[in-house]
Amino acid sequence: MAFGWIDEQADARRRAGLVRTLRPRPADTPLLDLASNDYLGLARHPEVTEAAAAAARTWGGGSTGSRLVTGTTELHTELERELADFCGFEAALVFSSGYAANLAAVTALAPHGSLIVSDAGNHASLIDGCRLARATTQVVAHADPEAVRKALGTHAGEAVLVSDTVFSVDGDAAPLAEFAMACREHGAGLVVDDAHGLGVLGPGGRGAPHAAGLAGADDVVVTATLSKSLGSQGGAVLGPARVIEHLINAARTFIFDTGLAPAAAGAALAALRLLRREPERAARARTVATELHARLTAAGLEAVRPDAAVVSVRAPSPESAVRWAADCRAAGLAVGCFRPPSVPDGISRLRLTARADLSGAQIERAVRVIGETRP
Amino acid sequence: MAFGWIDEQADARRRAGLVRTLRPRPADTPLLDLASNDYLGLARHPEVTEAAAAAARTWGGGSTGSRLVTGTTELHTELERELADFCGFEAALVFSSGYAANLAAVTALAPHGSLIVSDAGNHASLIDGCRLARATTQVVAHADPEAVRKALGTHAGEAVLVSDTVFSVDGDAAPLAEFAMACREHGAGLVVDDAHGLGVLGPGGRGAPHAAGLAGADDVVVTATLSKSLGSQGGAVLGPARVIEHLINAARTFIFDTGLAPAAAGAALAALRLLRREPERAARARTVATELHARLTAAGLEAVRPDAAVVSVRAPSPESAVRWAADCRAAGLAVGCFRPPSVPDGISRLRLTARADLSGAQIERAVRVIGETRP
Repeated sequence: MAFGWIDEQADARRRAGLVRTLRPRPADTPLLDLASNDYLGLARHPEVTEAAAAAARTWGGGSTGSRLVTGTTELHTELERELADFCGFEAALVFSSGYAANLAAVTALAPHGSLIVSDAGNHASLIDGCRLARATTQVVAHADPEAVRKALGTHAGEAVLVSDTVFSVDGDAAPLAEFAMACREHGAGLVVDDAHGLGVLGPGGRGAPHAAGLAGADDVVVTATLSKSLGSQGGAVLGPARVIEHLINAARTFIFDTGLAPAAAGAALAALRLLRREPERAARARTVATELHARLTAAGLEAVRPDAAVVSVRAPSPESAVRWAADCRAAGLAVGCFRPPSVPDGISRLRLTARADLSGAQIERAVRVIGETRP
Repeated sequence: MAFGWIDEQADARRRAGLVRTLRPRPADTPLLDLASNDYLGLARHPEVTEAAAAAARTWGGGSTGSRLVTGTTELHTELERELADFCGFEAALVFSSGYAANLAAVTALAPHGSLIVSDAGNHASLIDGCRLARATTQVVAHADPEAVRKALGTHAGEAVLVSDTVFSVDGDAAPLAEFAMACREHGAGLVVDDAHGLGVLGPGGRGAPHAAGLAGADDVVVTATLSKSLGSQGGAVLGPARVIEHLINAARTFIFDTGLAPAAAGAALAALRLLRREPERAARARTVATELHARLTAAGLEAVRPDAAVVSVRAPSPESAVRWAADCRAAGLAVGCFRPPSVPDGISRLRLTARADLSGAQIERAVRVIGETRP
């Protein structure tokens, strides 16, 4: 029977305790949220939601086509201009998701015959970009500039290094300045995904590339998401105008996808303006993360020191991680639970996100619940 | 210099007259729109835009995470239930875009060692799905059940046929019933993208698979988009519950992407309910397409007979197609212009979309402008 093999895989998943199920949440929940990527607490900010509402009314429920046909509105252009300006790049291009932005940047900037050097800790969307690209990919040890140098040294033609700026699973930062130096020694381009850096790192949340002195560099391209710090949906690529023009002409996930919905563009733009006006939100997210880590460690838990707003806490096994997260939930705390096969290193962990709007009392409560429910 | 090769490609594009540029549109334009994919004229329907606004207010500007973490709301579930019910399938799963839905369905349903038979006219997102999948892909002649049979006959293991139901470029329909028969003879699964069928074909717009008697079949999986007839953003996969559960567990563009923004889910749900209440919109879109085609043909233009709501008009060359579309625009008519390299057959054409809300006078005006500006 067609698709018969699916049942065998489902059985294997069930036996291994690895079945994933959706847990629809209500609009209002008493759960304390340390699981979402809403780092600045802007997703439900009235200015953001009202901007989404206004954009839907003014521009419609959808963008109605590819951005090359009818899907580019003046609102998209405004968002692109302000985002590029904020992060210090010449131009920006908005996509329907961060996933699509990553597929676009990697495939369009790694032509046939070129080499992609890819950090072993990269996000699935960067990995899929490498798989789709016509280039050869060499995966190198995580956060290791020497490994990057060595890989680039094996190739004479065009090359790019592809990396997250902050790795989603453990929340550790890439050595961006050293990565850039290694690239420059070899004339290679640098493509970094700042999904977890924008809004959190750099002055006023301008992102990890800005913090590393790479903003506006002609050999650096940054991808970002509008769905984390900016509380909306969508992705973006930032870089030199010539790179952005190239993407408009060559990136399949730009050309053949419907443009981002106006409501999402409007929400992201409002969040960006809010962040400009209240730059302390970025620093507050980092402070909350540092405090979370310090308290967890003081409670005897094994937590990774956060470089941005993600705090990862080790669990002894996939089963215990699932149970731990469920026990937290039962005690009123929502935490992420990352485990195989969706973590490259096979380590199971609770994944906590530090939101700028968490109070000291909430942090204390979160740490208490996590400590009391530890396996 | 890094990315230096981009300038050479840009020069080549300029010399070939193939440069693409974005043309941001204002919120209100006097242009008559025959370019968008807003087939039912719902993108700016007040019920749809108010639902987007209400969803943003109730649920936030974004879904805040992967649907497996915090990104699934009760609104997503409601949309999935109603969409599955409307199209006659057991279950549905909503994605951030149709592109993501296609990548998910193709990669997750074509495991290592299996065969994908792919129609030569397929959309870029299905092609990228084939490229990402661990299976072997065999591209077969366009809309040719015998070619499908032959390809399936070469392979002993698992196999799927992947096809659009209505091909985006020329607007022609796939021979779905014959495709399904060919698949069943070989125990193969059928995965079809109904992006241009949902809302237009089948009773009340229930889509091409419904029209072909394939709704609810246990060997058929349908992908769809929320950004065309439903006037919003996002994509969906519809099929047996076991297939949907498999996607939740295995599809990378589901697991590692932020969930669809609440405003987009709300807009799509409102559009779906509107279509249920006003099923005549689907038939009207088809009637407009047929009328457009008849009048264009009567005016001596070479137009492809439409199977849904897309009407393709042949142009003599890429340059003349670009000029033709520009002349239409100057005369107040927005039309799509498809040309190499974004068309698989190398044919340049104007691409017109028939909207259910076009009046007879508007159709007449469109045909007059297209005729008067012909190269």
